[in-house]
Amino acid sequence: MSRLLIQNCSVLVVPATGECRVDEAQDIQITDGKITSITPTAQTPAGDLEVLDATGLLAVPGLTNAHTHSPMVMMRGAAEDLSIDNWFNQKIWPMEMNLTPDRVRVGARLACAEMLLAGVTTFVDHYFHADQIAQAALELGIRADLAPTFFTSTGPAAREAAFDTARQIRALGNNRITASLGPHAPYTVSEEDLRRTAEVAQAENFRIHLHAAETMDQTASSQTQYGATPIQILDRTGILASGSLIAHGCGIVDSDYALLQAHADRTVVATCPKVYLKLAMGNITPIKQLHAAGIPVAIGTDGAAVHNTLDVWESLRLVALTEKHQQNNAEWMPLSETLRLATHNGAKASTHNTGTLQPGHQADLALVDLSAPHNQPLHNPLAALVYSTRPTDVVHVVVDGNLVVKNRSLTTADLTEILTQANEVAHTLTDLTNPGAIQHYAP
Amino acid sequence: MSRLLIQNCSVLVVPATGECRVDEAQDIQITDGKITSITPTAQTPAGDLEVLDATGLLAVPGLTNAHTHSPMVMMRGAAEDLSIDNWFNQKIWPMEMNLTPDRVRVGARLACAEMLLAGVTTFVDHYFHADQIAQAALELGIRADLAPTFFTSTGPAAREAAFDTARQIRALGNNRITASLGPHAPYTVSEEDLRRTAEVAQAENFRIHLHAAETMDQTASSQTQYGATPIQILDRTGILASGSLIAHGCGIVDSDYALLQAHADRTVVATCPKVYLKLAMGNITPIKQLHAAGIPVAIGTDGAAVHNTLDVWESLRLVALTEKHQQNNAEWMPLSETLRLATHNGAKASTHNTGTLQPGHQADLALVDLSAPHNQPLHNPLAALVYSTRPTDVVHVVVDGNLVVKNRSLTTADLTEILTQANEVAHTLTDLTNPGAIQHYAP
Repeated sequence: MSRLLIQNCSVLVVPATGECRVDEAQDIQITDGKITSITPTAQTPAGDLEVLDATGLLAVPGLTNAHTHSPMVMMRGAAEDLSIDNWFNQKIWPMEMNLTPDRVRVGARLACAEMLLAGVTTFVDHYFHADQIAQAALELGIRADLAPTFFTSTGPAAREAAFDTARQIRALGNNRITASLGPHAPYTVSEEDLRRTAEVAQAENFRIHLHAAETMDQTASSQTQYGATPIQILDRTGILASGSLIAHGCGIVDSDYALLQAHADRTVVATCPKVYLKLAMGNITPIKQLHAAGIPVAIGTDGAAVHNTLDVWESLRLVALTEKHQQNNAEWMPLSETLRLATHNGAKASTHNTGTLQPGHQADLALVDLSAPHNQPLHNPLAALVYSTRPTDVVHVVVDGNLVVKNRSLTTADLTEILTQANEVAHTLTDLTNPGAIQHYAP
Repeated sequence: MSRLLIQNCSVLVVPATGECRVDEAQDIQITDGKITSITPTAQTPAGDLEVLDATGLLAVPGLTNAHTHSPMVMMRGAAEDLSIDNWFNQKIWPMEMNLTPDRVRVGARLACAEMLLAGVTTFVDHYFHADQIAQAALELGIRADLAPTFFTSTGPAAREAAFDTARQIRALGNNRITASLGPHAPYTVSEEDLRRTAEVAQAENFRIHLHAAETMDQTASSQTQYGATPIQILDRTGILASGSLIAHGCGIVDSDYALLQAHADRTVVATCPKVYLKLAMGNITPIKQLHAAGIPVAIGTDGAAVHNTLDVWESLRLVALTEKHQQNNAEWMPLSETLRLATHNGAKASTHNTGTLQPGHQADLALVDLSAPHNQPLHNPLAALVYSTRPTDVVHVVVDGNLVVKNRSLTTADLTEILTQANEVAHTLTDLTNPGAIQHYAP
C-alpha cells in the first residue's frame, strides 16, 4: 500500500456546474493512486506515509491535454508562417517520412517532460508508433490515452497494424495508459475504413479519436465530394455510435448538432484555439452550441509543430479569450466554465477518472504557487488560474498518487538526458531531402 | 565611467525591415548606459569593467510595453467576465475613487518588478499620480514614459495639474524617465481641453499619449454626437500635429488614414489584443492598414485590471495570432515583423533610443535562456521568441547599462517587501463601499 499526504494546501473545487471555489487549509490523503479524503488540515497521522508540505500552494486537478500529437515537439518551430496547405504539404507530411520508432520515443519523452513540468497530468494522443509513446508515458509517470494513427492511403495492413498497436497498449495492463482507435480524419480515411474502425471499436470496446470538420472549407468540400458533412460521415459509418473524441470541429454546421446530440453520452470535442488562429483556419470550435447540444468540449494543444508548446494553461486562456471575442460577449466563457473545460471535460476526453479532486477519484493534481508578482495581489485565484498563471508556477505534480514533479523537477527521468537525446535526433526529423510525404493535404 | 561586458551570448538582430537574425558568440560592450560595440567573442579586455558571462543565452532588445496603466496591477483579477460598460462603471472607475499617491506608488513598484523580471525594459504609462510612478521607476531601474491622466469632468485645475506633473517628471532630469501629456480620450476630454493640450505640447515639446477610437461603437457614437470620428477630433484639435501615441485605434475607419498619414512621422498606435478579446470589443487594431499608411504599431498590455499580466511576450504572441486570424492569412504577421513591433516600434512608442541592439543605442536588453523543454529542440529561435518563450526564460536584464535583474532576481529592490506592501493595501483599492466614480463610461 502506498500512501501520500499532501498537507495544508488550498484546494480548487470544480463542480459539475456552477462556480468553482477554493477551500483553504486542507489535507489531501492519497492511497494506492486514489484520493481517499480531503479534510481540514490536522496533525500528521501516524503510520507509513509520505508527507508533502504544501503550505501556501493551491491544489488544482491536473490539466488534461485533450488532443495532441506529442512527438511533434521534435518539429517545434520548423514550419512557421505557412498556410494550412503548405504547412502540411511542404513541411509536416514530408518531415513525417522520417519517423522511426526510436525518434518517436525521443520526442514523446520530451513532450511528457514538458507537460508534467507544466502540471499537465494526462494527454490524449493521436500519432504513429504509439507503442513507443506508451513506453515514454510509462517511464515519465504521466497518464495518457493513445490512439495509433492511420490513413487509408497506406492500405488495410497499416490500418490493422494500428488496431494491433491499440490492443498492445491495452495489454500493457497499466491503469495510467489506455488506448483508442485512431483513423486520421474523414478526408484521409475512406468510409469503408471508418466502418471497419467502428466494428473493431464496438467489438472490443475501444473509443475512437479522430480529426473531423477541422475547417468550414473541409465541410463544404465533403458535401461536394461525398454529399455529406464530415459529422454525417462519422454518423453513417458508425463512428459516432461507437463513442468518439472529435478534434477541432470548427466546421460543424447546424444540421450536425442533432447527430451529435443523439450520441451525447459518448462524444467529446477537443478544441485547440491557438492552432485555429495561427493557421488562419477561419472558425473556432462552436463551444457554446456544442454545450447547448450536451456535447462536452475539452481543451488541447494539438501538436507543437503548430502550437509550439504543450502548455494547456495557454490553451485554456485562449479558449476563454477567443470565445468572448467570437460570441461578442465578455460575460460568456466565465472563469469557472473555462476551468471546467480543462479539468472535468478533460477527464471525459481521456476516459480516465480524473479532473476533479474528490475521494474516489484518481490522485492527479498540480500544486501551484500563486505568490509571484504576476499573480499578485490575489483578489481572485480563479482569475489567476485562467488569465495569469504560468507553467512555471507549478511546483509539484502528482499522477496516480506518485509525486512525479517535485520542486519543479522531474522525479522519474533525467531532463538533461531527455534534452540531449532530443537534440541529437532533431535534425533527422526535419530533414526534407528525401522525396515523398506520408499523405497529401487536399480535403 | 561605468562599463559592462556581456560575454559570449547570441544576439537577436532586428533590422528596420526584413528578416531578423541571430548572431552567435558575441560580446556586447556597454559604457555609461550605451552599447559601444557588439563583436565576436574574444578575450576579456583589461580595465575596470563588470563582466557578465552570458554563455548559452540570447540577448534580445528589451521589450517595450507601449501602453499600460501600471498601478492597476493592484486590481488584477478584481473585475472579471464583465462587459466593457460594467467593467468601467461597476468596477474600475468606482475603485479608482480609492487612489492615493501612496497606493499608486505601491502598485507601480509591483508593476515595475513584474515587467523587469519578464524582460520588459520600458513601459509607456498613462495614469494618475504619475509622479509616484516616476519614483517607482527610478527606484526599480526601469525605463518609462509617463503621461499624467486627466478628464474634463474634473475641471481645468486638474488638467493644468496633470500638465504640471508632466513638467515635474521632466524636471527630474533622469534620461530613463520622460513625460507625455495624458488626456484620457476624446469621449472624456472636451475639444477645448484637447486644443489646450496640443498648445502646451507644442509650446513645451511634449508628446501626447491618449486613448482614441477604442471600438467601432465609439467611432459611430462620436460621429453622431460630434459629427466627427475620434481621429478627426484629434486632427482638428491639433493633437495629431503635436505628435501622439494613440492607444487601441480598433475603431479607426477608412477616412481616418489620410489624417494619420499626414502625421506619420509623429504618430504611433499601441495595440493590446488580449484586452480586445477579453472585453469583447469587436475589432482589433487594424495593424496591416496602419502599416500601409506608414504608421508604426507597437504592443502593450493595457492595465492588468483587464489584461491580468504585464507580460509583453503574451501580448506579442497574441498580436501574431489575432492578426493571422483577422486577416485570414497565416503568412501575415510573420515572426520578424512581430518581433519588430515589440522592440523597434516599442522604442518609437516610448520616444527612447532603444529597441535594437547596436552601437550608440541605449543598453536595454534581456538575456534569454531557450534551453528549457518548452523551447526545445530549437529549430528556429525567432519562432521560440514569438510562440513559446515565457517570461521565466529571462535570466538577466539590463536597462541603461545597469544589471537590474540578475539570475531572475531584482538587484534594485526587495521583491518580498514589494509584495508585502502590495498585499497590505490591495483591499483598499478594490473597496466599493464608497459612493461615486472618477468618471462614467458612456462614449
